[in-house]
Order: sequence, then structure tokens, then C-alpha cells
Amino acid sequence: MKQEIKPATGRLGVLVVGVGGAVSTTMITGTLASCKGLAKPIGAITQFATMRMENNDEKLIKDVVPLTDLENIVFGGWDIFPENAYEASLYAEVLKEKDLNGVKEELEAIKPMPAAFDHNWAKRLNGTHVKNAATRWDMVEQLRQDIRDFKAANNCDRIVMLWAASTEIYIPMSEEHMSLEALEKAMKANNTEVISPSMCYAYASIAEGAPFVMGAPNLCVDIPAMWEFSKQMNVPISGKDFKSGQTLLKTVLAPMFKTRMLGVSGWFSTNILGNRDGEVLDDPANFKTKEVSKLSVIDTILEPKKFPDLYGDVYHKVRINYYPPRKDNKEAWDNIDIFGWMGYPMEIKVNFLCRDSILAAPIALDLVLFSDLAMRAGMSGIQTWLSFFCKSPMHDGEHESEHDLFTQWRMVKQTLRNMVGEKEPDYLA
Amino acid sequence: MKQEIKPATGRLGVLVVGVGGAVSTTMITGTLASCKGLAKPIGAITQFATMRMENNDEKLIKDVVPLTDLENIVFGGWDIFPENAYEASLYAEVLKEKDLNGVKEELEAIKPMPAAFDHNWAKRLNGTHVKNAATRWDMVEQLRQDIRDFKAANNCDRIVMLWAASTEIYIPMSEEHMSLEALEKAMKANNTEVISPSMCYAYASIAEGAPFVMGAPNLCVDIPAMWEFSKQMNVPISGKDFKSGQTLLKTVLAPMFKTRMLGVSGWFSTNILGNRDGEVLDDPANFKTKEVSKLSVIDTILEPKKFPDLYGDVYHKVRINYYPPRKDNKEAWDNIDIFGWMGYPMEIKVNFLCRDSILAAPIALDLVLFSDLAMRAGMSGIQTWLSFFCKSPMHDGEHESEHDLFTQWRMVKQTLRNMVGEKEPDYLA
Amino acid sequence: MKQEIKPATGRLGVLVVGVGGAVSTTMITGTLASCKGLAKPIGAITQFATMRMENNDEKLIKDVVPLTDLENIVFGGWDIFPENAYEASLYAEVLKEKDLNGVKEELEAIKPMPAAFDHNWAKRLNGTHVKNAATRWDMVEQLRQDIRDFKAANNCDRIVMLWAASTEIYIPMSEEHMSLEALEKAMKANNTEVISPSMCYAYASIAEGAPFVMGAPNLCVDIPAMWEFSKQMNVPISGKDFKSGQTLLKTVLAPMFKTRMLGVSGWFSTNILGNRDGEVLDDPANFKTKEVSKLSVIDTILEPKKFPDLYGDVYHKVRINYYPPRKDNKEAWDNIDIFGWMGYPMEIKVNFLCRDSILAAPIALDLVLFSDLAMRAGMSGIQTWLSFFCKSPMHDGEHESEHDLFTQWRMVKQTLRNMVGEKEPDYLA
Amino acid sequence: MKQEIKPATGRLGVLVVGVGGAVSTTMITGTLASCKGLAKPIGAITQFATMRMENNDEKLIKDVVPLTDLENIVFGGWDIFPENAYEASLYAEVLKEKDLNGVKEELEAIKPMPAAFDHNWAKRLNGTHVKNAATRWDMVEQLRQDIRDFKAANNCDRIVMLWAASTEIYIPMSEEHMSLEALEKAMKANNTEVISPSMCYAYASIAEGAPFVMGAPNLCVDIPAMWEFSKQMNVPISGKDFKSGQTLLKTVLAPMFKTRMLGVSGWFSTNILGNRDGEVLDDPANFKTKEVSKLSVIDTILEPKKFPDLYGDVYHKVRINYYPPRKDNKEAWDNIDIFGWMGYPMEIKVNFLCRDSILAAPIALDLVLFSDLAMRAGMSGIQTWLSFFCKSPMHDGEHESEHDLFTQWRMVKQTLRNMVGEKEPDYLA
Repeated sequence: MKQEIKPATGRLGVLVVGVGGAVSTTMITGTLASCKGLAKPIGAITQFATMRMENNDEKLIKDVVPLTDLENIVFGGWDIFPENAYEASLYAEVLKEKDLNGVKEELEAIKPMPAAFDHNWAKRLNGTHVKNAATRWDMVEQLRQDIRDFKAANNCDRIVMLWAASTEIYIPMSEEHMSLEALEKAMKANNTEVISPSMCYAYASIAEGAPFVMGAPNLCVDIPAMWEFSKQMNVPISGKDFKSGQTLLKTVLAPMFKTRMLGVSGWFSTNILGNRDGEVLDDPANFKTKEVSKLSVIDTILEPKKFPDLYGDVYHKVRINYYPPRKDNKEAWDNIDIFGWMGYPMEIKVNFLCRDSILAAPIALDLVLFSDLAMRAGMSGIQTWLSFFCKSPMHDGEHESEHDLFTQWRMVKQTLRNMVGEKEPDYLA
Repeated sequence: MKQEIKPATGRLGVLVVGVGGAVSTTMITGTLASCKGLAKPIGAITQFATMRMENNDEKLIKDVVPLTDLENIVFGGWDIFPENAYEASLYAEVLKEKDLNGVKEELEAIKPMPAAFDHNWAKRLNGTHVKNAATRWDMVEQLRQDIRDFKAANNCDRIVMLWAASTEIYIPMSEEHMSLEALEKAMKANNTEVISPSMCYAYASIAEGAPFVMGAPNLCVDIPAMWEFSKQMNVPISGKDFKSGQTLLKTVLAPMFKTRMLGVSGWFSTNILGNRDGEVLDDPANFKTKEVSKLSVIDTILEPKKFPDLYGDVYHKVRINYYPPRKDNKEAWDNIDIFGWMGYPMEIKVNFLCRDSILAAPIALDLVLFSDLAMRAGMSGIQTWLSFFCKSPMHDGEHESEHDLFTQWRMVKQTLRNMVGEKEPDYLA
Repeated sequence: MKQEIKPATGRLGVLVVGVGGAVSTTMITGTLASCKGLAKPIGAITQFATMRMENNDEKLIKDVVPLTDLENIVFGGWDIFPENAYEASLYAEVLKEKDLNGVKEELEAIKPMPAAFDHNWAKRLNGTHVKNAATRWDMVEQLRQDIRDFKAANNCDRIVMLWAASTEIYIPMSEEHMSLEALEKAMKANNTEVISPSMCYAYASIAEGAPFVMGAPNLCVDIPAMWEFSKQMNVPISGKDFKSGQTLLKTVLAPMFKTRMLGVSGWFSTNILGNRDGEVLDDPANFKTKEVSKLSVIDTILEPKKFPDLYGDVYHKVRINYYPPRKDNKEAWDNIDIFGWMGYPMEIKVNFLCRDSILAAPIALDLVLFSDLAMRAGMSGIQTWLSFFCKSPMHDGEHESEHDLFTQWRMVKQTLRNMVGEKEPDYLA
Repeated sequence: MKQEIKPATGRLGVLVVGVGGAVSTTMITGTLASCKGLAKPIGAITQFATMRMENNDEKLIKDVVPLTDLENIVFGGWDIFPENAYEASLYAEVLKEKDLNGVKEELEAIKPMPAAFDHNWAKRLNGTHVKNAATRWDMVEQLRQDIRDFKAANNCDRIVMLWAASTEIYIPMSEEHMSLEALEKAMKANNTEVISPSMCYAYASIAEGAPFVMGAPNLCVDIPAMWEFSKQMNVPISGKDFKSGQTLLKTVLAPMFKTRMLGVSGWFSTNILGNRDGEVLDDPANFKTKEVSKLSVIDTILEPKKFPDLYGDVYHKVRINYYPPRKDNKEAWDNIDIFGWMGYPMEIKVNFLCRDSILAAPIALDLVLFSDLAMRAGMSGIQTWLSFFCKSPMHDGEHESEHDLFTQWRMVKQTLRNMVGEKEPDYLA
């Protein structure tokens, strides 16, 4: 049952869409600083987590499967602003200047390529450092050339592409997304209504044999056309929407209520954040995309149909508010109305003073490293085992997403065990 | 591997220590009301939860193993106050009068037997309805007689004893607790310093072949003498300290941090409550017992030795404050200091406006029903699979407790599967 | 300087617009119950508050000025639903049934007159118990007839009209509101775009010589035409928008920051509520009216122009979310970003679990009783001294509103002292 | 009525007890940085606040009365640790290094004199940089010499002494504190049980003609002996206990409830802090002193005797918890149980994430500057008008403290108006 896994030799190019954004620069700075021993990549499963083996020993995951060393990563990418990664980090105001200065030179060397961008898909953004493309197909061609150029210039063995840019506006799935043929046709016909820039990135990535990771809730790779293409090209794809703060909590608290058979009557979630992501989400069309992503988790976990007395009438509302004083320090406030014995009501309020990029950076790194592993292990198409990292995990038409964090975590471990031909240990872990 | 399980025929007598307390009367009222269709026993795993079978079907737990029907339960018990269960419920102010009135007659019929009590073990309590016992051994004898009388008078097939009374003062384990012989000797010698009233109840229960459940954090059954006795008498024992509110949350949030490899630097937990339990815990000697119970969970889950960078320096503080305006509506406020990528700090505040007895009642009922099941399945001694319900799960000297709620839940299901000879399904659930 | 005040003899008719709403029925029930000694009208300044006199004695306000006794009030009003006040109270779910039952008969006797209503001004409401009026002027005429009929039928000496109905949609002031002549012309021309139903109520009230109180943030009496009319008819008018929960807190916390010269960089306020008011405010057009009312307070108190270093850049955001599980138990969560010494930031979070109608009821009663007093004391036009009770206090074009709760409170006391010819005591109080 | 005020010419020496503590170093750094234009002394009334004059003009307070310019202050003091102010600031971890560096040289020049210290009055502290004094009287003599030496060495015209050191253990007032004669006798007799080190500082300060400010809740100047001495020496004394965070909020929220006649049934206040102050308060004997100071405010404001229905049964509990992860970022959580109309309960939770020293620094500076002003204006003894800055304002045996922040603020302004012979303006302000 053991899979053949190619070794992680040579250099891994990580091309980030939105390389100058808060999440990207935080991930890059932390990775570089970790290599120099200046910081610890806390929160990264690939760097810290252990798992129990068949013989009940506990080993670091990175000792179980062959992961790319952080030292062997080369970062690059695209951005709609021309600033290098050092300048962009200062602007993001996530990390302290003294933490940036430890890797200043390395960050300055990371200069974004002009981005494939369409203002209609993110109206609050006005980028200047953008490609000129006649059609979506042309956009794809330019991106493919970028990838090849980067790979050659940096002497990379392998590439992973990561979308860490903004949420695009909401669109429903349409005919053009249902097959690879239809998708390519729409790209060539320059159907800008249904083909988003992120789809061009994903397509280019897959076409170049590079795993693609979608960190935002964009439709992008959640369509049959991309599934087909990734299978055909033997490329893993994963996403979507980093599960960083409020939703992380939800996918832990909802299982708690369920496990204890406590009823839920309402869940009100509000967020305040002041970074560029908050600004984009202040546009209702973009918020819609995020809202759909954030709303799905409760129902899937609570299974109202199976437990109508407990979860048959949950009022779930999610709000995101642009609030500049908070900057990147996203803050969430949740009010949860539950009920117990004989229907008596109780309330839980959770106030999460988090840092958006600090939580997202290790997730981004883990997704990159695990996607690269999956590629080397010959796995293609949707990587459901990476649901653990996602607010709105990818799934095909026949399956439902798994949202429970702990079940997701078991899926990660089981997948890794399968890769190396190990069985689950007797002991529950 | 399938175990022989005796059917749940006939009546089950449930003898509650502290039968007039808030938890007991809430459990009793809800159970009686459920039998009449006036309320739903929400939060009770035995009544609502399902589990996935080998063939991937999902079945109600009560359809998998033979549990006693609620209709077949007869309630009784001891209390230091003479009020019947209806009067006691009114005093507790947990349930609305109209909810009590639906089963008023049944509640009025439940009159407590005089309690085995020693003021030195709960100085804030001044009970009047208490036994006169020359020695601890005499106390035991009287309780055994009570059990036999109740069983006969109510035509019960089986008895389970449940401690739902107050937290006793803290004592360390001593020589007298190390063997059955030493324990009995100390009882006969009336060593009131080391033999608490709860130990007399537990001993009496085991001696009469009745499973014993410890709902408070009392040392009581957490001693080798009781393990020995319960094994010898083929009686299951379980506890301790119902995992109802704040600790429930902890055993879900701590695994979240761990699973995601987020560091923890501090955890401050405070509680305000105004019921009799709060009054008892206002005495530092009694609080100590509770504190020990509440403090253990974090370390066991986070494993600081294995993850020194993440959990090597967690400052954990737990406070309980008697605050009469809150009555039974116990309220918890937690501040958790965590850190992520590159060590950047974040905070989570959780404010749980819960109801102590509403959360504890279904736990009490579940422990009673599962203990009875275990007895009929021939299981004796410490029931580690019931850790799911406990703040400070029992364990012998060789093992450590499992605190992670979801791992505990898997232990429940695995144990039930073993009872009926089922294997775990492939699908993770 | 002492004013001539007519005695409060005879009966006072209180006609409430929205008499079946949560605020009205709560106010009415509490007033009736207080008369029978079944409850206390807590929160009512007119019933409990004291003030210091010139001679430093402290007297109850109701012993300083002649207020109408609660026993002498007769309640009536209009509603878009035909239920009597008892039925409406049950629907509102604010008060416990046993509290309603003490005055059940009296409540049942209060049957609403059909309301003057226009669906376009409150799209989420679908009332059936409404007047048929050809024009706004006809609406006014019908309401005036209602007032006269009620006064005669109930043998009232005086009438006060109170708007305790929903927030109407937002409209800016326009030409039609600038003079009495223009207003009357627009009413006769049936200009339903600029003449709201509430303006018809206010006009009718003033025309009948009855003080008018505006409890919602509707434009209504905040226009020169009404000021002119009220002066001409010698009738006091007051409002607007009961200052009950979140804004009450704001007008206390903002003065605290100001008094201590602490800077403010942001204030985020969110509300969840599930009553009919919340449903109406779920429509953006109606929310706009409320938002304008709620946003004004901060700037007026903090005076950014005078203190640019401290308050020159306050980001203030207010959100109201319809959330049915909360019912009338409106809940507010505020996050306030402040800064102190050397600009260092700090945060305050306030979670107010309030009850909308419980807070609004005594305000409504006080406004009614003080308006009646003002009428008897010969005061007409805008009653700025009643700002104390209002989120968005009325003011003419030349003055600004006072929002600071404690300054408002001093205005109440100073006005009352003036009425009875007393000077301020030396002692600060 | 106008008072003769000596001009603020020459240099003012500010001698701080605990000059290396978090509050002192923060105050000193901010003052020095303000002089250089590197920071703003936000929160300081003396620097920012305005008041309305008789002619309704609004003027900066520092333009109304002659205050010492920040440039003319010379800082010095005592500490039990020998580090200079720069080193001490780094240890305190209140201010960012880059903010300290702007005035590094000036801070390094501030070297503490050895402190008068007695371990029995602060058991958690182990200072090494302490005086050797045979008796309390000898302690006084040494301190007086220190003051004279400092004044001469720094060419100061005037001195103010400020206690910004720890809370001493609780002691009740005793015979030795009742007259100056008794106090001096006890000092000479070296009665270390009733004469605390802080009393020696205060005595020395007064003896040298320097105003004394007590920033902690120590009994110290709250005794008749000191009142007598300060009157005799024509020196103003003020205190006690900086009103910085939680109590500041209380003295604003309690007046809100009172003004609105809302009932209060309970107030639970908890604090977590991790600085040296928190460490000292972890000792019950020292906490007792703080607790008494913090508990007094509610009753004085709410006047339970006058309003038994509303405030006759308030359960007030205050807790302080040492919690190192929080460092100087003291955090308060308050739960307030209130009730309104017909007695219906509501709750307010306030979570104040403050910074102890950032809030205290401007208070300390204001008290110093106003004490110096009072001295020059010929005011001696207890300065009740400075209650505004204190948790537990000083008052003699005949009067009660004023706790309401806004009444206190009016007292400040009225006193300043009296100094310069101005009447209160008509307009309420």
C-alpha cells in the first residue's frame, strides 16, 4: 500500500500570488528568519507536529515523510504593487521592524512580477503593477512564461503556486466551468464575466505541472474543469480559504456541542479588521464570497436533519466590518446561543484578538510543503486530506466537506500513514 | 470479543447523595418530565447520540447497547436537609416553577434519607437531617442498610449510587487509603481525618454490589483501597468531577491549540457562582480539592515536555468566586494568551454564561446509565471509558488520564463497539 | 423667576402610537402593576430620583414639582395589529406571564385604534389594523378625531401623545419641512414622499394641544415646521430616540475619555436583537435613520476640532443585526480603541446584555410625565432639558445637542429648579 | 476671593519614591520626550484640558493658572534597586525601546538614592539598595538630608515628593497615628509595627516643606497626625491610590446607574496583571490594603441608605490576580448585575485591556504639578480637589469622599476658578 515518494532534492520555487500582501510577506519573513535561527515557525504542522506510529512511537511528521527543507525554498510571485517584499512588509505593519531587519536583504531581493489583474473582480483595489493582456487566454500564456522564467532563473526543481491574494467577487458556477473544454473556450473568447484572474493563475500553474493552493474563498479551483485538468496533468490542487481565526474556533466549538448533544439556537459572528483584506471585503460582492465560505461550516458539522431537536433551527449570521484602527489584528466576537437539559438556554461569547497573518502564515507554508509532497507522491486532483487547513474544503460533486478540525487532523495523519505504509496504532491518537 | 451483557430488565434504583441539591433535583425533574413527554433530556448522550457502525450505518447508542429505559428508574437518596425533592427544587431556583409543576407529585414523593455527614469536611454547610454514627464503620453499616431497605421497598433489580453532593476538603492520599485492609481498619478505628463521608458512601455502594459514580472532585474512589474493593466485588466505579462548563471548554480549546501547534503562555480562568456549591467552595480547604481537579487538564493535553517551545511555560491559574447574584447560573471568564508564527502573541477571551445544573444533569444521568450497563456487561473497577464525562478522570497508578474531549468520545464509542463485537468503521467517525 | 405651574388634577390620557409594541406594553404593564403595588417602576426618574435643594436638603423630584400620579393615567393608542394590550404583551415576550396576569383585566381593556400607516415607510411591517386615508391631511383629521373621542370617552383633562412605534425610513429635510405653511400644503397635496405617518401623528397631537414625544429616530418633529406649530399652539415637543442601552453607555464613556484627556482612535459598536424593532431595522433604509441617530453622539462629546491630537481621527462604526434568538434581549458589543501617555494604545470591550423594553419603558413614562409638567408650566416648543432621555436630542438650527449624560442630568435639575424658583445649592450635586 | 499665587519660576525637583518602578519611569520618559517633541503627554489634564471661563471662553488650564513648565522639572528619587532610570525602564517593559532611546542619556543620568525600606511591609520584594536606619526617626533624618542634598545639587527652587512605589501591607489606624506628638514618639521609639516606611517619606517631605503625593493605597497620609503636621508646615498633601483603570470605569458607570435610577444587585471585578505591583499584591496582607481602597467607591456613589430599593443589596467583590504573561498590561474584567423596570435583571461585562503605567503616568504628573501649584497658592493640608485622580480620595474625619468622576472634575475646575477669582459660567460645563 506504501506509495512511491520522490525525494525532496533540489530547490522548491514557491510562487505567491499577492506576494507583497500581509500573509505572504509574513510567511516569507518567518521562513527566512527560521532558516537563520532568528525566529521559530510556530503554528507550522510540518515543522513541529508529531504523530504516533504503528509501534506507538511518536515521531515528528517531517521525520515520517520527506518534506522539502525550509532552506531549499526560493520565494517569488506576482503583485499589483511594485514594492519589494521588504517595503511591502513595512506597509503591512504585521511584523516589528526589528524582526524584518534580520532578513532585510533577502526580502529586498524578492521583487514581484506584474500581476494578472482585473479591477472588476476587486473594486476596492487599484493596482498599478499589472499585466496587459488581450484575453484571459493571453493572461494564462504570460503567467506560464513567468513560471518557466522563474524556474530557470532560480534553478528550481519544482514549483508550487499559492494564491494569497484577495477575495474575488462572488459568482455562481456556470456552464463555462463544467468542463476543461468549456473553460478553455471561455478563456479564449475572453469571457471576463465568468473567468476570474485567479482561474488564469490556477490554469497556468497546473499547465506547468505545479501544484496549486487557493488561500482565498474564490471559486477558482472549485469547479469540474479544474478537477479534470489537474487529474489530466497529474497535479494536486487544494484549498480553499485559510482556516485561521473565527472559523477555526467554530470547527472546534461546534463539534463540542455536537459531541455533548447540546442544542444550538443561534450563532452570531462579527469581525473587525483593518488591513487590505478588510478593505476588499467591505465591498458586498466580495464579502458574499467570504460569507458563503464562512457560513457552510456549522450545518455540515451539526447535521440538523439527523438531530432536528438540537440543530433544526440554528440562526447563523456572519459579519465582517472594515475597521482601520485594528489593522492586521483582526478581532472576532462570537455570541453562541445554546440550550441544554429540558431546553434551558445558555450563552457563550468568544472574543478572539488574533492576528490574521500570524495565523495564516504557517497554514500557507504547510499547504505549500504538503502540496509539494503530494506531487512527489503521485497524488493528483483535489487533496481532501488538506481540509484541515481550509475554511471551505474542496470536495467534488459526490462528497461533502469534512469541517470538524479533529476529524480533519485524523485525515492528515491517516493520509501520511498510508503514504509510508503504516497502520493506525491501537492507542487512540 | 463480544461481551455477554445482561438485559436491562426490571427497575433500576438510583440513589443520589445530595438528592435535594441543584444537580440532583434538576436531573430527576428532567428525567421524570421526559417520561411524560413534557421535556427533552437534551445533553444526554444515552438518549440522543448516534455512532457509526462497522457497516457505516449510523445508529442511536441506545439501539446499540441495552440501556435501562428512563421509565424504569426509581429515584431516592440522602440529604442533609429534610425537604422533599419538590421543595428542594424550588429552593435551588434552577428550573421554572411551571416546569416543576408538571411532575410535582412525583417530586414530592422523593424524600431524602438522613445523610451521613461530617461538618469538618464541608464547613460552610450546616445540615440538620443527618445520621448519628459512632464510627465511620457504623456510618457504612447504616448506609448499607438504607440501600437494602430502598431496594426492597421499591422493588428494584439493581442499584446505582451517585454522589452529587458537595466537594469535600482537600486531603492528600495517605497510608490508610493504600489497601482495602488499611481502609477498613481506619473506618473501624474511626479515623475521621482521612476517612471522609464520601468514602463511606462509596464503600457501602460497592459492598452492596452497586456501581458508584463520584460527581465531585473528592479523593473518595481515587484510591487503591477502593480499586481493590471494586475489583473484588465486581463493581464498576467512575468519576470524578462532572466536566460541565469551563473545563469542558478547556478540553476542547487546548486540543485546538495543540493540533494547530499554536503556543500557549498563559491561561487565566475565573468563575462566579452563587449556589450552595459556590458557598462550599468559598472555603479554601474545599476549593483546593476543586483547584487540583481543574488544574490538571492543561498539562496533560499540551505535553510541555514534548513541546517545550510551545508549552514549556504555561502559567495556569483557576479561581472560583462565590457571588450570590449569579445563583446557579455559573459564569466563567477565561483569558488565554497564545502565540503563533515567530512568537507573536494573541489572546482569546471566553465568557461562558452557563447553568451549572443544566449542564451537569445529563452527565449525571449518562454516568448512571452507563455504569449500570458496565455492571451488566461484567466490567469492574475504574471505568476509564467514562472519562468523557469527568474533569479529573480516574486512572490507576500506571496510566495517565486522557483529557481531550474528542479522544475521550472515541473511547466511549470504541468501548461500546467492543461490547457488541463491532469493529471501527473505515470512515473516520 | 418662578413659573406658574397648573396643578396635576384630573386624569391624564396617554395615547401611544404602537400601543401594542414591546416598549408600550412593558411601560403600561409596569405602570399599572406599580399602582397595585405588584412591581416597582425602577428606572423612572419621576418616581425615584432626588435632587438637592438650595438649602442642601435632598428631596424627591416628585415632591419638588407637581407630577401626575400614576393612578391618574389612562392608557390608549393606535396599532397596526388589532390585539389588545394583554395579547400583545404575550407576543412581545418581554415580561413573564405571571407579571402580566396581575393586571390582565386592565390590559385586556386597552384596545388599539386603527393606525395611520404607510407600508412604504416601514417595509418589513405588514399591518392589517390600519386607517383608510385619502391624503395625509385626511390622516391628520382622523387622528385628531381619535384624540377628541378618547379624551371624552375617558374623561381626561389632558392628553400626551407618545410615539413608541417603529423607526421610519431615512429622509433628508426638504423644502416642505421648512415652514408650517409648506408642511400643511404638502399634507393636503398628499406628498407621501416627504410626509411620513409620524408627522401626521405629531401634527394632530399639537393641533389638539397635546404634548408630543418622539421615541424613535424619525425626522418627524425635528423640522422647523413643527417647531413653529408647537410654539404657535403652546405645546411642548420632545425627542428623539430613547437613549436606552448602547448609546447610554457611550454618553458616559466618551465623557470619561474626554475628562481624562485620553485619546480615541476607533469605536466599533454592534448590536443583536430579535424583536420587531430589529426586523424593521434590518431594512437598510430604516437602519439609515437609526445609524444617523447613533453616530452623532461621539463627535459632539469629543469635539475633535478642539482636541485634534486626541479625537481628530476617530473611526466610528455602528451596526445593528437582526438576530431572532435574542428576542427583546438586545445585546450590544462595543470595542473602543483608546490611547494614552505617549500615544500607547489600549482597548475596552463592553458587552451589554440588556433588555430593550425594560430600559425604554421608564424613559417613555418619564418623558410623558415631564412633557405634561412642561405643558402645565407653560413651556412650548423643543424641550432641550429632556435631552437626558434621548439618543439624538432635539435642537433648533442655532444650537448643538448636548450628549453628555451628566450634563444632561444637570440640565434636568436646573430646569426643575427654575420652575420652582430655586437656586443651585453651593455643594456640587 | 482671588488667591495670591506665587509664580512658577525656577526649577521644580520631583523626588519619586520607587523612581525605578514602571509608573515612575514611564512618567519620566514621557515628560522628557515631550520636552523634546518626541511624544505627547496624552492623558495629562495639566497639558491638554480646557475649562470654560466666566465669559464663556474656553481656555487651556495651563493658561488659567501658573503651572511649572515641563522643561523646568528635574527628576530624582529613591529605589530599592540600584539601576538607573534607563535600565529600570527596560526591565519594566512598558515602553518600546525606540521610545526610550530618544531620551536615553537623560534617563541614564537619573540614579536612585538608596531607599528607606522594610521587608515586613512588602514581603514579596527583596531590595538590595536600601538604607541602614537604626530607627524610623533615623530613617526620616536620612531622607530629609537626601532632599536637601538633591535640592542643592540640582539648584531647585521647590520640591514635590511623589510615592509611586508599592502597596504596603494593611494596618488599621491606631493611637500612634492620632496626633503629631504620638507619631513622632512612635518613630523615635522605632515602633515598626505601626510606622511604615511610607510614613517616614511623607514626614520627611512635609518637614522639608515639600508637598507630598501618595499614589498607592497606603494608610500613610490618611491619618490625623499627618494632617496636623501638613497644616502646621503649610504643605499640601494628596492621595491616595491613582485612579487609573477599573476604578476609573466604576466611578463613571456607577453614576450612570444612579443617574438613571437603575438598580444594582452585584458587581464582580477581577484583574490580572504581571508586573511588580501584581507580585506585591499577590500577598494577602498587601492586597487587603488595595481591596479596601477599591471597595469603597460603589457604596459612596450609590448611597444604599437613600435608595434601598435600588442599592440596598449590592454584592461587591474585587479580585486581583498575579498573572505574569500579562506583564504591565493590566487587564480588568467586570461583571455587573443590574435591574430595571419591574425588577428585570440585565448584565454588563466590561473587559478593559489597559496598561497600568500608561494610565498612571499622566495622573502622577498632574498630581505633582497641581500640588506644586497648591503650595504656591498657599493651600495646605488635604487637597480634596485632587480626588479626581484618586481611587480612595483623602478626607478628614468629618467629610466623606466624593467618588463620582464628573463631580470630582467639577471640583477641580471650581477650585481653579476660585484661585483666579472667576465665577462659574452660566452655561453648564
